[in-house]
Amino acid sequence: MRVYLDNNATTMVDPLVAEAMRPFWSELYGNPNSLHQFGMELRPRLRNALDQLYAGIGAADEDDVVVNGCASESNNTVLLGVYFEIIKRGNKNHIVTSSVEHPSIRASCAFLESLGVKVTYLPVNSEGAVELESVREAVRDETALVSVMWANNETGVIFPVKEIAAIAREKGALFHTDAVQAIGKIPVNARDAGADYLTFSGHKFHAPKGVGGLYMRRGAPKLRLLHGGEHMGGLRAGTVNVPLMIGMGLAMELAVKNLDYELKEVRRLKDKLEDALIAIENVFVVGDRSRRVPNTILASVRGVEGESMLWDLNKNSIAASTGSACASEDLASNPILTAIGADKELAHTAIRLSLSRFTTEAEINYAINVIPRAIERLREITINYK
Amino acid sequence: MRVYLDNNATTMVDPLVAEAMRPFWSELYGNPNSLHQFGMELRPRLRNALDQLYAGIGAADEDDVVVNGCASESNNTVLLGVYFEIIKRGNKNHIVTSSVEHPSIRASCAFLESLGVKVTYLPVNSEGAVELESVREAVRDETALVSVMWANNETGVIFPVKEIAAIAREKGALFHTDAVQAIGKIPVNARDAGADYLTFSGHKFHAPKGVGGLYMRRGAPKLRLLHGGEHMGGLRAGTVNVPLMIGMGLAMELAVKNLDYELKEVRRLKDKLEDALIAIENVFVVGDRSRRVPNTILASVRGVEGESMLWDLNKNSIAASTGSACASEDLASNPILTAIGADKELAHTAIRLSLSRFTTEAEINYAINVIPRAIERLREITINYK
Repeated sequence: MRVYLDNNATTMVDPLVAEAMRPFWSELYGNPNSLHQFGMELRPRLRNALDQLYAGIGAADEDDVVVNGCASESNNTVLLGVYFEIIKRGNKNHIVTSSVEHPSIRASCAFLESLGVKVTYLPVNSEGAVELESVREAVRDETALVSVMWANNETGVIFPVKEIAAIAREKGALFHTDAVQAIGKIPVNARDAGADYLTFSGHKFHAPKGVGGLYMRRGAPKLRLLHGGEHMGGLRAGTVNVPLMIGMGLAMELAVKNLDYELKEVRRLKDKLEDALIAIENVFVVGDRSRRVPNTILASVRGVEGESMLWDLNKNSIAASTGSACASEDLASNPILTAIGADKELAHTAIRLSLSRFTTEAEINYAINVIPRAIERLREITINYK
Repeated sequence: MRVYLDNNATTMVDPLVAEAMRPFWSELYGNPNSLHQFGMELRPRLRNALDQLYAGIGAADEDDVVVNGCASESNNTVLLGVYFEIIKRGNKNHIVTSSVEHPSIRASCAFLESLGVKVTYLPVNSEGAVELESVREAVRDETALVSVMWANNETGVIFPVKEIAAIAREKGALFHTDAVQAIGKIPVNARDAGADYLTFSGHKFHAPKGVGGLYMRRGAPKLRLLHGGEHMGGLRAGTVNVPLMIGMGLAMELAVKNLDYELKEVRRLKDKLEDALIAIENVFVVGDRSRRVPNTILASVRGVEGESMLWDLNKNSIAASTGSACASEDLASNPILTAIGADKELAHTAIRLSLSRFTTEAEINYAINVIPRAIERLREITINYK
């Protein structure tokens, strides 16, 4: 049995999605910008995919949803776009974000800092949450943008984006949320949340890798990163990725349809696994259970190196993560555990287990059987434990 | 019969490529950055794909080839990258490009002009070619970058990139070439050409839409557009698009393998069609036949509106283009015909016919039967034609 518990890193493409894309490789292969039947026959299909995306994230008809190459492109578009559209043109020179954002946000912020932009990185508390008080303190008149993720990729902790959006709006700042880890796990409505911009990523909800999207509320400045061509309403150059856009549209529809299942069944399986883990001595899980997405566990196991744990689990055909796959080769402490104030020794023990609607009860039973024994084995060879 | 003669806009995915991608949707779906078997089992496959790409464009082992979302991303990366890495940091403030580049180059240049960068747009002559003398005149000490495409998307005219690269190098400027329309049509070797950067696009050589690449010669400044994560050697954020990268690797290998076929058989079919077109009164084809890629015809048909021609051909199930699909909804004059000095009336008559290795003799025979009659019909209803 191979047990994939790393769905926050990437997900299996839903076989229905793969099937839906199939005709678009070698049969319906035109360029939708072309004025002949090979191009035009694609347009209703793309409109349908857009409808599915708009409905899935609660976009209004007058908003823009730009399909692009990945969530990292969306995040870079927002940060660099705000730099060129707002910061370089006016007297605002400040960005507020959290200290536990995805690397594409943190690296873009660091790049903007090198250009002279001021950035405030909000801390998270011991529950892994951003506190509204710290947002209120950080946002000021010169703040051009507040960018805070909807749910954290490592802990699954849900951030109060609606309240943060309200604080940003009150101070005249734009609000962006990276909702990559929220879509398909909890209800996401960009309009209700008051987001000006919202990032999503196909491969985190069973669409393929290599396609993502950026929501832009009507009235918010239109941001561009790839110049050229009139694709996506002139907002993003590059031939429209027909098969993957159609795949992502269907995947979004399926994600919304399966939300009840996610909130009940995936949560039940996750809780079953979590209960088994916290029953082990000196194992704790980060973040209040009621404030996390239903699929994610970040477990800290005292006395066990995260890498050794991963290796042992891998030998037993369980795929987990020490943290974000976006930086898993980096053996430095896990930023989220550092952020929640755990010490360095503790930080090395983070193991993330993330389920999906394709995770079965049998797989969870297998994990519950294997993981405690792995912890026992590894603690026996650890000089630091007891 | 449906006849697709718009392969410069996009190509059919080779069925072998679609088949090669198939296991990577719902079976081998890990994130290659992950440190478990779902991730690691992908690495040899990705290395193989990279090997195919390196071999296909003549990259040396020590060069970088970054797989990204599309050629427009590559082109934007080069232009914006040179802005941040060279222009903002030193005393060079000038870019040389041609007036007939892809919209992603032209729009990026316009964007840089809005930031104060000086851009020289080289004209093309009546054969649709960039003349070396104009390059020599344009490149100066303050030139940071020369960016000239390898082959033009509308005429198929091949530009003297090796000689242009030498002029750039002599003046201390970097050289970039957008080789999107050259790969799979003529031999392309980035090292031999002396390119510092080279752009390619999967969907122009029978890989899917939504994947492209950027070659960067060792020693040339490393340029980045998407910040965050350590993917692609830290040069491009975003989870590696495993299926499409594997597809593009195979497509590149097949493109190179089929180059002889392209240069003989595709050229023969193209010449057959071209001969039939120029036999018609007041039809001419842009560019010296021996200096064009083997698959492309840009025909100017006096007395016929390009749009009407397209429409008539479309009704007869032939897919052609009035110019670049990237801007085909824009009814302004075709920039290449404007650039070669044709008058406005003439410019509206451009019809581009572009073949691929999947084009059959029967399809060309059908086109040879249909197109002259379409021209006749349309001329009868045109008040401007005699």
